[in-house]
This record gives sequence, structure tokens and C-alpha cells, in this order.
Amino acid sequence: MKKLVPHAIALAVLATAAASANAQSTLTVFGLMDLSVNSVKNGSTTTKSMDTAGLNTSRIGFRGTEDLGGGLLAGFWLEAGVSGDTGGAGGGTGYNSSNASTTGFFNRRSTLSLSGGFGEVRLGRDYTVNFNVSGKFDAFGANGFGNGANLYANKSPFDKSSTATTMGAASALRVNNAVSYFLPKDLGGFYGQVQVGAPEGVAGNGYKGGLFGYAAGPVDVAFSYSQIDVFTSDKLKTTNLGGSYNFGVAKVYALYNQSKYGALKYTTYELSTSVPLGQGEFRASYGKGNAEGGTAAFNNSDATLWGLEYLYNLSKRTAVYAQTGSLKNKGASAMSVGGLGDATGAKSTGYGVGVRHMF
Amino acid sequence: MKKLVPHAIALAVLATAAASANAQSTLTVFGLMDLSVNSVKNGSTTTKSMDTAGLNTSRIGFRGTEDLGGGLLAGFWLEAGVSGDTGGAGGGTGYNSSNASTTGFFNRRSTLSLSGGFGEVRLGRDYTVNFNVSGKFDAFGANGFGNGANLYANKSPFDKSSTATTMGAASALRVNNAVSYFLPKDLGGFYGQVQVGAPEGVAGNGYKGGLFGYAAGPVDVAFSYSQIDVFTSDKLKTTNLGGSYNFGVAKVYALYNQSKYGALKYTTYELSTSVPLGQGEFRASYGKGNAEGGTAAFNNSDATLWGLEYLYNLSKRTAVYAQTGSLKNKGASAMSVGGLGDATGAKSTGYGVGVRHMF
Amino acid sequence: MKKLVPHAIALAVLATAAASANAQSTLTVFGLMDLSVNSVKNGSTTTKSMDTAGLNTSRIGFRGTEDLGGGLLAGFWLEAGVSGDTGGAGGGTGYNSSNASTTGFFNRRSTLSLSGGFGEVRLGRDYTVNFNVSGKFDAFGANGFGNGANLYANKSPFDKSSTATTMGAASALRVNNAVSYFLPKDLGGFYGQVQVGAPEGVAGNGYKGGLFGYAAGPVDVAFSYSQIDVFTSDKLKTTNLGGSYNFGVAKVYALYNQSKYGALKYTTYELSTSVPLGQGEFRASYGKGNAEGGTAAFNNSDATLWGLEYLYNLSKRTAVYAQTGSLKNKGASAMSVGGLGDATGAKSTGYGVGVRHMF
Repeated sequence: MKKLVPHAIALAVLATAAASANAQSTLTVFGLMDLSVNSVKNGSTTTKSMDTAGLNTSRIGFRGTEDLGGGLLAGFWLEAGVSGDTGGAGGGTGYNSSNASTTGFFNRRSTLSLSGGFGEVRLGRDYTVNFNVSGKFDAFGANGFGNGANLYANKSPFDKSSTATTMGAASALRVNNAVSYFLPKDLGGFYGQVQVGAPEGVAGNGYKGGLFGYAAGPVDVAFSYSQIDVFTSDKLKTTNLGGSYNFGVAKVYALYNQSKYGALKYTTYELSTSVPLGQGEFRASYGKGNAEGGTAAFNNSDATLWGLEYLYNLSKRTAVYAQTGSLKNKGASAMSVGGLGDATGAKSTGYGVGVRHMF
Repeated sequence: MKKLVPHAIALAVLATAAASANAQSTLTVFGLMDLSVNSVKNGSTTTKSMDTAGLNTSRIGFRGTEDLGGGLLAGFWLEAGVSGDTGGAGGGTGYNSSNASTTGFFNRRSTLSLSGGFGEVRLGRDYTVNFNVSGKFDAFGANGFGNGANLYANKSPFDKSSTATTMGAASALRVNNAVSYFLPKDLGGFYGQVQVGAPEGVAGNGYKGGLFGYAAGPVDVAFSYSQIDVFTSDKLKTTNLGGSYNFGVAKVYALYNQSKYGALKYTTYELSTSVPLGQGEFRASYGKGNAEGGTAAFNNSDATLWGLEYLYNLSKRTAVYAQTGSLKNKGASAMSVGGLGDATGAKSTGYGVGVRHMF
Repeated sequence: MKKLVPHAIALAVLATAAASANAQSTLTVFGLMDLSVNSVKNGSTTTKSMDTAGLNTSRIGFRGTEDLGGGLLAGFWLEAGVSGDTGGAGGGTGYNSSNASTTGFFNRRSTLSLSGGFGEVRLGRDYTVNFNVSGKFDAFGANGFGNGANLYANKSPFDKSSTATTMGAASALRVNNAVSYFLPKDLGGFYGQVQVGAPEGVAGNGYKGGLFGYAAGPVDVAFSYSQIDVFTSDKLKTTNLGGSYNFGVAKVYALYNQSKYGALKYTTYELSTSVPLGQGEFRASYGKGNAEGGTAAFNNSDATLWGLEYLYNLSKRTAVYAQTGSLKNKGASAMSVGGLGDATGAKSTGYGVGVRHMF
């Protein structure tokens, strides 16, 4: 038997006599498979590969809500990343990543919420406030060759710095052991979140951040700031500022990220756009990364990025796409848009075609 | 669309023409998320943390039954522990724990059953008969700062003993490769189980145990006994005896566990109670651990424990709670109620508040 | 509530107003639990064990399809192996196996497909064309003591060869990063598949293969061939040829597999049959492995295998079974039908009884 569904498939749940009148509930199994065939050239090395996150990152998850009455809702969300090309699932991504072998299955999100007129209190592993801004104001949504996160997520100048290893500008993607409070949804367009993550005795795991934004009609702007106890000696301070305007014929995004660790500073800028074209959409981006305050090598670790993407929706849930993007490293900068080989001081260029299916 | 549901959500299953008349079936996706914010002081070290098992251990699972006709049922059960605070899932807990990196996802239970008028034959990984008694006759259900398992599950005197490492009194929580037989349910209140786990060539993995009990009206009493081939030279022998009586205004539990390995003997006693208070419940416990038959240090590894907990049910599935508990170690005893730091010969005290949601 | 279902349980999916008219979809949670109690004697070592793949390999998965209109379908399939005896899940099996700790959960299959009148394009991790032949033309379906894969899947002469380690004849079971094209289903009984797996810069991971077959009425025959870049110096070339004929009173299968690596050659032959007996089925097999082209020890690594199995269907989804099988190694051959201990130049014989339940 088949029925009509949109994006995600909500599972029918059964009534039972024992249920109280206000215990209304949903349980949803949901996910996404994205597989693409790519060619990436880093410096002089070309790699052909199958990848699993071209348009969106592949995933599978379980989520549900319960209506507790009086406007109060309980909700849980468990979501695992999937490597559709090899069958992998889970594993850590980003800051505080739970990448120990058996402890990171639901690596994308693992939360429990109580929400109501007061807003939402959310506990567990979740996106940081930083990514809630930096991922939102990028036409590529932090996926694909042309997405702005390529300027900071992987081998950024900060990753190469011995004092803040693995901590790039907005690569504080997710945080464990976090308590978040979200403002209520009906504040005349204003929205906000504060987020605190317990260090649990580990230097570098403590997290404190907040975001504040305004969305109304075609306009959306937001700002976020966080501090991470990278080491006891100093903190990693990350600022994100983004805005988008929907002109109808095109939506335009602007994004500014800056991370500071002592005197070291790494800043990225990105402009991107999405243009609806019938059942399809065209996207373009241009970004820049600038390192300051360190050694000559660090300061010379600048980079530029551009990307182009076209996707065609076969349905609301299934799309085919083609994309390209190129990142040009200066000096000691060694970032890439994917693939193997060394792109230090050189170009990293990718081409790919793929399919994305949401369920 | 939302429908009324109780504790677990049974998924609607579809009829098809090919199905024979007696092949009636259910498939259920179920789980639980429990997240709490805690402060634990061990000796002089205080740790603030988010944890995931205050009231019940977080989990997700899949189970189902098939009616084979003639009163015969087939059933499977696959259940993974979840670390809601970090997104972890699976990994080993307890005896025979399958904690190798990729081999313990459904670490809580992985069974296949045939049941009917004759009782039930159950194959796979499951709770031991020991835990089927020791977990049942504790008002805290083996979770939280005040639960009696804190006296044996972690760093118990047996865990510290070189001859029976990692084998505490009732910490034989789960067993792999087990065949269990359960008595039929209609024996006038009597119930029982025998359980054998294949060693598969590994010294220490062989398990043999049984339990027998009686439950009628307000009374429930049970006894269990097991032998584990810890090493070829001797066996770890564990005895559990528990009882509960429901007075209506309160339910009272008593529990006695004893493990012996050669001359070494470790015994715990626990009294606990749960008191219904409108939509809420109050729980209290007091327990004691006593080591004998070893070195002076071993014999001095005694401990006492008390706990208090209040939970308020927002619905049948969602509760908020507050709890505290304290474990006092004597001599070389180094047990704790959680947290970091060393509690050898000192106190381990925890405070926490949390939310638990069943789905 | 229970409803009639066959083999797998399709979950009811909900209609929503936002769904377009042609976005019809299914999402299915499916799986299988198989647990058996076995005794295996390898040489002089006898092991009693519980195992989880006697009749079929235990598993759990999620799959779905979406009708895109115009005869086009999108489909995904995520399937994890399960060790029902210990609760394990995932981990690598076979060639290109993704056995790194966190990257192989959906180790059995992880694919995304677009299909229509043109056939099917399938991306991701899947069975190789080799196994699509060698698993199909074996009455035991590559499970159990008597299945022909015991002659090549584990410790085959190729596995012991330093030049083609871990690459047995048809042990190229699954391949990562693969693009497959399947012929349409309505070609008068002819069917076929070509499959290419990207090496992604790793010598030994590149895969190219194809299969072609014909099935009509009682007849089914197929041929497959593949090349694996084991090392840059040479390729592992595998050929499979199989056929079956259904006489009604019995179905008879014949299978030939050959792997070549340079001058080394390992060939297996298998004849097997399944005989329906009321609600049950009887199966028997006889097979032979022959090594050539290497050292005297390699060339002497021959083996013979026979197996017997009886299964009784309690329903369409649940069966009980008993099986036995024996593999006789010559010379340096060290293959086994399971269990512990060394069977080099000796016999490996197993006996078992089990239950298999599909959901």
C-alpha cells in the first residue's frame, strides 16, 4: 500500500485504550541518501570517487513529539550520519565530536526537548549556535564543492596551528552535553538561542554561546558568538554574522565568520545566491579566507573559493544535480574541496554529478 | 497526524493478500531518552556533567512478534543503549559485554524467542537471571545516585581483585550466546528461568544460572543463582534474593546479593521504597556492601549508600525528576555514584535534575 | 492491533496535503534474526557455540521507494548485518568491506537507485556481480555448514597467498563506491548488470564486473566476470557460472567459480539441491576446491565439502532447522565450516539446530 507523503515519512501510530486524552504523539523514521560521482584535482593529483554529501549529508534518524497538554510538548531527536558510498554510519563530525569508536552513532543530533509558550529547553548533542548561523546564510547549506565551509572546516589555518588544533573558525559544528534555551517563536520576527556545554573535566570541551536574529518577509539576519576553552591558557572566540534577502527571482546570502585565539585571527567572507528555475535551482558562491596575527606563514594562509551548482527536482524529495567549485590556496594554506593529494599553495577543483533522495 | 499512544509506539502493519490467516504480526520501534544535569563530588573532586541514565537508561530498539497459530508466538528484540548527551549508541555493558568496537550495537538485548503453553525458549544476548532479580527488587531500578547497583557495578572490591577482575556481585548484568527457558506464565504465581551461555572457547564466558520466584497480589519474592567460569581454576558464584510488598501508600523492597570467588566474598544488602504522591513518586534507599575472606585491604572494602529521588510525571511517558545519593567508602573501597576523581576511602555524593521521555 | 503480513513489514505512511499527486512512497523497516546452537570440530578441537547465520544472515534494515511519475522510481536501501548472539551490528564482510570501526554499520547494503523503463542505475555499497551469481546458484544460499562459499570465503588458498591476501575466488562479496547498471526486467528472460567501483586512490579497491543471465520457467543460468586491482602489478580475475533447474519435486543447482591472480588459479565446483517436503524443505550439497599454478603447497590446497539441511516452516516468516556439513582439507588447505581450532589438512565438521525469523 502506498500513500502520499512529502519530505519525511511519518509513521502511523496506534490508538490504545490505555492512552490518556492528552498523550498525542508522533514517531518519525526519516533520512536522506545523497550519492555523487566526483573528480577532484588537488595540486597535480586527480581523484575519482563516489561521495555521499554533495547536496546534503546522508543520514538516518528517529524523532518524535508528545503533546503533554497545556501547550507543552516533549520531543526527542536521534540522527546518524550515513556514508552511503560505503555503508558507514555515525562517527564524529566537528567540535566535541564523539568520534570514539562506539560512542558516536547518532553523531548529527541527539536531543531531548521540552517546549511551550516559554520557548524550548533542549538537552544533548546538537549544532552549535555558530553553525546555526554559518550554515543558514550559505546558498549551498554547507555542502558541496562551492560551500563556504570549505574555507574553514578542513585544514584551515587554525587546524594547522599547534595552539588551536582542529578548531577552525566555524568548525565548532556540533557540541556535546549541551543545554540550550530557544526564545519563543512569536516575538515579531526576533529569534534567539543561548547554549552551554559542560566540559566534564576535559579542557577544550567547555562551550558557551548565543545567537540572536530577525526574520520577516524576505529578510533574515543573525549574529552568533561563542567561547570554547580550547586550552586552559586561552579561549577560542568565534563570531558569525549572516543575512539573506529573497528578491523572488533570486535569494542572496552574505556571511562573515571570524575565529580568534590569542593574537591569531582567521576570517572568512562569503556571498552566495540561489536562483529558482522552474523545477530546478541554480546556485553560485564566492568566498575568501584571511589569516592574521601569527607567523608569516600563518598570515599568508589565505584562500579564495567559488562554486556553481544546478539541481533539478524530480519530486519534492528527489533531485539530480551537477556541481563544480574551486578553492585557491596561497602560501601555506592547504585547504581543499575534497579528494586526495596535497593542495598546499595550489588549487583544489572538483566536478560532480549526483542524486539526492529524502525519506 | 497524531494518534493516542501509551508507553511504546506500535507501528501499523499492512495486510497483504499473500499473508496466511494465522501470520499476525507487530513491529515496534521503541526507546527512551533520559538527560540530566548533575554535580558529583568524589573525595575532593567535583564534576558537573550531563548524563543519560538518571531515571532510566536511554535506548532505542526494534521488537516484534508473530502469531504462529496454535498458541505459538515467535518474537525478536533488538535494543541499543544510547548516550543521549553525546549521541553515542551501543557498546558493552556488564559481563560478556560485546564491547568490541563494531560488535555491540544492540548491547542491551538481542534475542529471538519461541513461546507458547510450554513457556518460552529465548536465544541470544539478554539480562542474566542475577539481574532479573537484583534490578527488580530495587526501588530505583538500578539507575540513579541511590540505586543499589552502585555498591557492586563499578569498582567494587571484586573489580579490584586480580582474580576476578570486572566481575562484581551482580554486575553479571547481561550474557551473550545464551539459551534461556522461562516457565509458563500461569503457574499460580510461580515463575522461573534457567539460563546457559556458551563459553565458545573463552575462559570466563561460560554461564549457568537459574531463578525462581512467586508473585501474587502485593507480594513478590525471587531467588537467583549463577556460576561463571571466571578462570578455569575456580568459578564466580552469585546469589540474589529479593522481595517486595506493596502496601498501597508505599512499596517496600529488600535485596540481598552475594558473590563468591574461592574464599573471597562480597555481599550487599539494600532496603528501598517508592511512595506514590499524586502524579509524582518519592523514592528512598539504604544499602551496604561487605567484603570478606581476602586480604585485610579487601576485607576493609566496605561501603554504605543512601539515595533520595522525586519524579513528577508530566504524562505516562514523560517525567521530570530530581535526585541525590551518597556512597561512603571505607578503607580501599573506591566505588562512586558517578563523576570523575578518586573516592577511595571517601564519600561520593551526587545531585541532579533531569527529564525522561519514553517513545 | 495486529494485521496480516507476509515476509517483510511495510509501514503505513501518512497522506499530507502538501504531497504532490505522484509522490507515492513506502518506507519499510525489515530484518531477520537467525540463532542456532552448534558444535563444530576442526581437527581435534570441538567448539560449542551460538551462531547467527545458519539459514540466513541476521540483519536489520530500512528501505523505501518513491514513485516519481512517468514510470520512474527512486529507491534507497540501508541494511546492517546483526550478530544476534552478542548484539553486534555492522562491521565489514568481504571485499572492500568498510570494516573500520565506525564506517561499516550498513555493511550489507547501502544504495540509492533510479529505475524505469531504461533499467536501473544503482549507486553505493552492494553485492558484487560475482556474488549475484555464486550466491544464487547454491541451494544453501551461501549460509550454513554445507554452503559452497565455505570453499572460498574463509582461509581459502588465495587468502593464504601473500600476493592476493584476503581475495578468495568469489569472496569479492560486496563492493564500495560502486555504480551499477541493470538491464530492464522485460527482455524475454534475459537479465544483466555491469558494475564499476571507484578505487579512490587505494590499490586493490578498483572493481569492474558484469553478469549476464537467462531465466524462464524452470530454467535459470548466469555468468559473471570481474577484475579487481589487487595490486598495481596484476589483477584478480574472477569468473562465476551457475545454473538451476526446477523439476518440481526438486530444484537442482550447479555452480562453477574460478579466481586467477597471475599464474595462481583456484577453482570451485558445487552441485546442490533443494527438495520441498510439505511445510518443510530438504537440502543437500557437494562441492570441491582445486588450487593450481603455485607452489607445491598451494597446489595441494584442495578441499571437498558436503552438507545436509532440513528446515520446517512454522509460518512464511519463521522456520526451525537442523543442519550438518563437513569440509575435508588436503595438504596446506585450512578452511573450515566455522568454529575454533586449526583444520589444516584435516576435517571440519559441524552440527546445528536453529530458528530463523524474518520481520
